Amino acid sequence: MYSVILCGGSGTRLWPLSRKNYPKQFLKLVGEHSLLQETYVRMRAFLPSGQILFVTNQDNYFNVLNQIRDIEPDFDQSQVIQEPKSLNTAPAMAYAIKYLLTQKHAAPDEKILFLPADHYIKDIDAYAALLRTAFDSVGEHIGTIGIRPTRPETGYGYIRKGEKQGAYFQVAEFCEKPDRAAAERYVDSGEYVWNAGMYLFSIAAFAREAAVHAPEIAALMQEEWEAFSEKFPALSAVSFDYAVSEKSDRMVVFEGDFGWNDIGSFDSLADAFGSDPAARQIGIDSKNVFVYGGGERLIATIGMEDIVVVDGGDSLLIHKRGRAEEVKQVVEILKEQQAKEIEYNLVGYRPWGKYEVLMDRPGYKVKRIKVYPGAKLSLQAHNKRSEHWVVVSGMARIVNGDKDNPVFLKENESTFVPANTVHRIENPGKINLEIIEVQTGSYLGEDDIIRYDDEYKRA
Amino acid sequence: MYSVILCGGSGTRLWPLSRKNYPKQFLKLVGEHSLLQETYVRMRAFLPSGQILFVTNQDNYFNVLNQIRDIEPDFDQSQVIQEPKSLNTAPAMAYAIKYLLTQKHAAPDEKILFLPADHYIKDIDAYAALLRTAFDSVGEHIGTIGIRPTRPETGYGYIRKGEKQGAYFQVAEFCEKPDRAAAERYVDSGEYVWNAGMYLFSIAAFAREAAVHAPEIAALMQEEWEAFSEKFPALSAVSFDYAVSEKSDRMVVFEGDFGWNDIGSFDSLADAFGSDPAARQIGIDSKNVFVYGGGERLIATIGMEDIVVVDGGDSLLIHKRGRAEEVKQVVEILKEQQAKEIEYNLVGYRPWGKYEVLMDRPGYKVKRIKVYPGAKLSLQAHNKRSEHWVVVSGMARIVNGDKDNPVFLKENESTFVPANTVHRIENPGKINLEIIEVQTGSYLGEDDIIRYDDEYKRA
Repeated sequence: MYSVILCGGSGTRLWPLSRKNYPKQFLKLVGEHSLLQETYVRMRAFLPSGQILFVTNQDNYFNVLNQIRDIEPDFDQSQVIQEPKSLNTAPAMAYAIKYLLTQKHAAPDEKILFLPADHYIKDIDAYAALLRTAFDSVGEHIGTIGIRPTRPETGYGYIRKGEKQGAYFQVAEFCEKPDRAAAERYVDSGEYVWNAGMYLFSIAAFAREAAVHAPEIAALMQEEWEAFSEKFPALSAVSFDYAVSEKSDRMVVFEGDFGWNDIGSFDSLADAFGSDPAARQIGIDSKNVFVYGGGERLIATIGMEDIVVVDGGDSLLIHKRGRAEEVKQVVEILKEQQAKEIEYNLVGYRPWGKYEVLMDRPGYKVKRIKVYPGAKLSLQAHNKRSEHWVVVSGMARIVNGDKDNPVFLKENESTFVPANTVHRIENPGKINLEIIEVQTGSYLGEDDIIRYDDEYKRA
Repeated sequence: MYSVILCGGSGTRLWPLSRKNYPKQFLKLVGEHSLLQETYVRMRAFLPSGQILFVTNQDNYFNVLNQIRDIEPDFDQSQVIQEPKSLNTAPAMAYAIKYLLTQKHAAPDEKILFLPADHYIKDIDAYAALLRTAFDSVGEHIGTIGIRPTRPETGYGYIRKGEKQGAYFQVAEFCEKPDRAAAERYVDSGEYVWNAGMYLFSIAAFAREAAVHAPEIAALMQEEWEAFSEKFPALSAVSFDYAVSEKSDRMVVFEGDFGWNDIGSFDSLADAFGSDPAARQIGIDSKNVFVYGGGERLIATIGMEDIVVVDGGDSLLIHKRGRAEEVKQVVEILKEQQAKEIEYNLVGYRPWGKYEVLMDRPGYKVKRIKVYPGAKLSLQAHNKRSEHWVVVSGMARIVNGDKDNPVFLKENESTFVPANTVHRIENPGKINLEIIEVQTGSYLGEDDIIRYDDEYKRA
């Protein structure tokens, strides 16, 4: 039994909180954990750590690893699988299966549960109970999880249930996102469930279905691991639903009701959770004003009704309730403008920690740098910029010029790194290291960096 | 002939842009200058610098001086009059007159134009022409300026014109802010003008009217300068309108039409000027969205209509068009909460320049400090905090421990000031000095300061 969490997503439906370099699954939208962390915690109540894996891409690899290690410091990094290329769910699942077979020596009759990383589930016990039933009874079928619908939602795909057979229903039909009228019919009929995008099957069942419906994948699966990895990027980017689910006659659906929400938009976040409890809000004659993000900035409204306000650092979004889907139009405009706000926020995530730009002006830039315990930045130099460092929390071991003689900097100590000087920051301590960095120079782009050595094998 | 600009106002109608420590007159709302600077520039087209004075209070004294010197570096600081206490317009005008008589040796027949510092005027030529006429013909009357109304505005006071006598009308009546129906009657009748809060009269005329209608002021005016100043704070806080205008039979009004706007709210700003041209805005199916403040943050709206968005640094205001007056309710709530957002923003203004808080966390705080050419901070020390300084622009002369041996810090140089060390920053150069300051310590309040010497005589 394995659970594989698919976290290659790069959606911007939650812009301006989610960005290309920090998609939705990493956001703390509900409670103290990110959606990815919540997904992991749910699985841990159900499986040992060694049976939970992640599939992600190069951009998100360290975000996944750091977030999971934040919960479970010893989490084995070989369980975070890095795809050579982000395609879609069918190739990602094939990659994970091949990895399990060759790198983890999984047996062909092992069952695997594939899950999205960015959904919310309220009733974890009910969820775990359904999964247990599903593992026990899926047999040679391809199992899916169907959510009993509570409203005529037009944002989800539906599954029409066929004949009931013990713990599951045959799948009669997969249905695309319906219009309002169709959604109402679906819900009223009692014959439909929401497609939660979760799949459960044995490796053997996957191989059998791939051979029939996804011959390109089936053929590649025959290769040795190295050749498989090398040729993988040439696969077509297709979803598992399109490649297999909609065609196979071995599909079954396990129906459940456990407060599932895909948090696909701020509307859906508002529906399920109301305002962010951390938000400082003052409303004069205002009703149904939902605020997300930030928490430091005060949001005051007068005479506003049914709106969502998202305070996303460098960007602010205000939308009428019910129109969250149109965020993608904002994102399209930003793409056309090649605006930085689509790619990243003021916070940059790195394998060793993160940085936050506090001020960016011609000639200088101020950052707060946070380095995780035990982590180290690359041994590096910059052509154009000097750096002033002030340690404001924790302890740093630094190289400044002489790479063979690192020195220690404690809280309230500082140093200066001239341009063209080899340097490195490392956190040898047990708590986060925080440094205020003041950069000066005529060019301050992140790409002015020469890396001599890197723990994380970056170019 | 003198012009005295009244700038003691501390209004928060433009919160979150205006704050108690930085009221509306200092804001750059229209064009490159603040409203105060614009007011000064209008007067300069009309009078020599030596005949223009300001009345302000201790809190705003250096804001006024610095803003005017930003336009006219040699502006004589004896022309910025600091009232011992902020009362209202009648005492402020009396204070200015006594100051002119005793400190500037003005003759009793000198005429003085009193102006608010925070209004906007579009047609400066028409305005100057009206003022010239008014100076020439006001004689022994108390002159006011009346604006021909262009709409039934309920936010202004009105003046009902009496008989026309040459260049002016007798004042028949001063009218409080009317309701909508009354305002419509006023405008339709053609008999009313808006009260622009500008007054023109000779010192002798003021003395005569004060003797009749404001005996408390008249009596105090008899005192010598020192005694006058000392007893001034005991005066009642009354407006000139209440004390004199509404009672005197010597009131006349000069009617003009020069695109006057009191910019009393974001609604009125939106009416007159539309959105801030510096605002980065994306609107999807949005209409009449007016954005003010900031300029760095991107504001995106979906399905929003007739709203005003004010990005005020630490606070954000969103209000329905036409409801700007209710900002005062937000301000009331903030007062009750004793919220810092009512007092000051992330920027603090000082006699020597300003600072901006970039990050404020337990144990450390990051600021950008800007020091004007020639200015110096006090010679000071802190009990609880150390400071790290990095010069990012300009040149600093600093004291760090030894007050008799200042040293120079150039761009890209830094220093460390331990707690309990006497220190000072001075800008000996011709351009602004910019320093990034990282404070560390268990207590980082602005009140942890011992001043040994201060150019600006602060405690």
